[in-house]
Amino acid sequence: MKKRNAFYAQSGGVTAVINATACGVIETARKHKDRVGKVYAGHNGILGALKEELIDTSKESARSIAGLMHTPSGAFGSCRYKLKGIQENRAQYERLLEVFKAHDIGYFFYNGGGDSQDTSHKVSEFSRKMGYPIHCIGIPKTVDNDLPVTDNCPGFGSVAKYVAVSIREAAYDVRSMAQTSTKVFIMEVMGRHAGWIAAAGGLAGENAGDAPHIILFPEIAFDQERFLKRVKFCVDRYGYCVICVSEGARLADGKFLADAGTTDAFGHKQLGGVAPVVADMIKQAHGYKFHWAVADYLQRSARHIASRTDVEQAYAMGKAAVRFALQGKTAILPVIVRTSDRPYRWKIGSTSLKKVANVERMMPRSYITKDGFGITKRCRTYLSPLIRGEAYPPYKNGLPQYVQLKNVQVPKILDSEFDV
Amino acid sequence: MKKRNAFYAQSGGVTAVINATACGVIETARKHKDRVGKVYAGHNGILGALKEELIDTSKESARSIAGLMHTPSGAFGSCRYKLKGIQENRAQYERLLEVFKAHDIGYFFYNGGGDSQDTSHKVSEFSRKMGYPIHCIGIPKTVDNDLPVTDNCPGFGSVAKYVAVSIREAAYDVRSMAQTSTKVFIMEVMGRHAGWIAAAGGLAGENAGDAPHIILFPEIAFDQERFLKRVKFCVDRYGYCVICVSEGARLADGKFLADAGTTDAFGHKQLGGVAPVVADMIKQAHGYKFHWAVADYLQRSARHIASRTDVEQAYAMGKAAVRFALQGKTAILPVIVRTSDRPYRWKIGSTSLKKVANVERMMPRSYITKDGFGITKRCRTYLSPLIRGEAYPPYKNGLPQYVQLKNVQVPKILDSEFDV
Repeated sequence: MKKRNAFYAQSGGVTAVINATACGVIETARKHKDRVGKVYAGHNGILGALKEELIDTSKESARSIAGLMHTPSGAFGSCRYKLKGIQENRAQYERLLEVFKAHDIGYFFYNGGGDSQDTSHKVSEFSRKMGYPIHCIGIPKTVDNDLPVTDNCPGFGSVAKYVAVSIREAAYDVRSMAQTSTKVFIMEVMGRHAGWIAAAGGLAGENAGDAPHIILFPEIAFDQERFLKRVKFCVDRYGYCVICVSEGARLADGKFLADAGTTDAFGHKQLGGVAPVVADMIKQAHGYKFHWAVADYLQRSARHIASRTDVEQAYAMGKAAVRFALQGKTAILPVIVRTSDRPYRWKIGSTSLKKVANVERMMPRSYITKDGFGITKRCRTYLSPLIRGEAYPPYKNGLPQYVQLKNVQVPKILDSEFDV
Repeated sequence: MKKRNAFYAQSGGVTAVINATACGVIETARKHKDRVGKVYAGHNGILGALKEELIDTSKESARSIAGLMHTPSGAFGSCRYKLKGIQENRAQYERLLEVFKAHDIGYFFYNGGGDSQDTSHKVSEFSRKMGYPIHCIGIPKTVDNDLPVTDNCPGFGSVAKYVAVSIREAAYDVRSMAQTSTKVFIMEVMGRHAGWIAAAGGLAGENAGDAPHIILFPEIAFDQERFLKRVKFCVDRYGYCVICVSEGARLADGKFLADAGTTDAFGHKQLGGVAPVVADMIKQAHGYKFHWAVADYLQRSARHIASRTDVEQAYAMGKAAVRFALQGKTAILPVIVRTSDRPYRWKIGSTSLKKVANVERMMPRSYITKDGFGITKRCRTYLSPLIRGEAYPPYKNGLPQYVQLKNVQVPKILDSEFDV
């Protein structure tokens, strides 16, 4: 097999561990210098390929690359940019192949969620059709945990840990002051369509009566009357009520409880601010003193409290992607296969890009309690291993020392500009 | 000196390290069993004394008490309840002495902020006047860092670390996606009147251009035009803009930018939600895509990312309080005295309760940059040592193992009820 260069890009919302995947890709590629030349990273994801803005990762020291293991965010820049269908915008795909050809790219690694794997799939289809030899490997990533086939998605375990830890801590706080102060605390978490992150909040409580007392999932239609009754029950019974609400919580008609009204490049509505809506509802009905938190980006960037399991799996996915490519595979995605719950064991499997492209996996109904406000034992068994283990970054002067790469761009070869 | 019992109470908003202070009090008292009988903790702070709801800490194992070192919140319950003036409600003070007398309390340790030290002061005055022998020692605690005399307040260092770490992490996230996604990120932090917590956000950035790009302090009147201009400058120059806004940010006329409209027992306005107000302002003016976070209680309960310096100082304050009492002192408060910036060194001093009661210490103007949007080198020198060192709690199954005490109540002796 001829030695060819690789292109790696980060896509969509970044996570606390997507750089650990990048580390897995780059370190594994460096171990196979006979077959993989340079690893070029897209500056701001796929846009870097379209604009021929390629970052030469060979300019980074082994130490800097190793530092990606403990650095949140996208080290090369990511983007929210979805390639259109091949029929709709053939020029984009032609441009990609033109750039790949110019830089002798023989491996395409695309690190993202369901929307991004749709892009990987299309790139793979188009290059096959055009006879351009390239190994297209997707790499799973999404805090939302909503990819099908894989047992879980890198990025999710760390946000899950952040949410579970935060709710436990805030609940201790609220409980210790509830008699004369705040009785209701609401934490809003991410999860546009699937309630996985909200469910993770449920891990904070281990015994009956522990917080969170109510979880609001996107999968369960919000019923204001039942909800308010439940809040009152909790305050009467436990003295306080902690609520974990998904940003995607919605009414029976599908309308989001809170809707900022703007949409992102993928056409998804930009959400945020359901916590104050819920708080106000409670205030109106019961008059309880409340507090609310919206963790927003803090939850997905919280590398300081990342799950060790998640970090390890993120790295393993990057490593597996390169290995698959070197085995001559294409149009696939490494996935996590759970082989045992107790003790938790997992291995690497694979699936076709086609199977994961644009498919969203919701929480199974069996993971949500009958009343719709909590998680079942089965859900707990699934979630618990994913937040296990700590993987602290190094600190200096009290602050985590995250890596900043040099991000040296590869000189452009093409003299054409491309409008994106 | 006769052996007498001690009363310890937690007051006002709890912190990540107030239990470390409790640990210092109880462990030190246990070492002086010849002079201190039992340590009774107030159930829900001073209310526990008024209602004769005393928790017998001698029922807790040494291991449980040691576990308080890594447990956030108030282990015995805290309260927002301010005793009125002696003239206004003499009955409250008489009741306190009645309960103290019934349980042979000879030491009164009151762990709280400026409002609470006003109470300690009044209790000390009243018992002196009534000839009741008791050593009244205040113990500083407040995330707001707004007590005078002491160099800093236990509780602040940990919230400062949480805010600095969170802003650094979120800034990495935003920067890596700014080209096609969020350009402005706003994090709202606590600090009703003083900007210390907002200032701590400034530690996240170490070089020119680093986030946070703008800090909004309560001490600097908000000027919308200048602010919006600065946001645009940052987005143009750095590609993104991270803003750390104090919940107490206010206009020139003193009006809070956001005001929930309700007030707590101390008569303070309950704030929250300035972040969305600022976000909307930016959206209207510039149209940038934004995200915002409101950390709320997460910041003050985040024991998982506590500052080791803070934990150590919190413990030391509790220990010093008991020692002062045993030295026969009263009506004082141990304080932290900084003896050197580099290397950071501190020792324990003391001041009178009268000097700290109801006094709020604002940020000095010299700690805020001339433009009002950042912190100076001097401020950095002051803040930096306070967030140094990590002090991780133990974990089990991915979650911090916080202690839950048995909280066994002492049998009541008085047969009178007391309405609070």
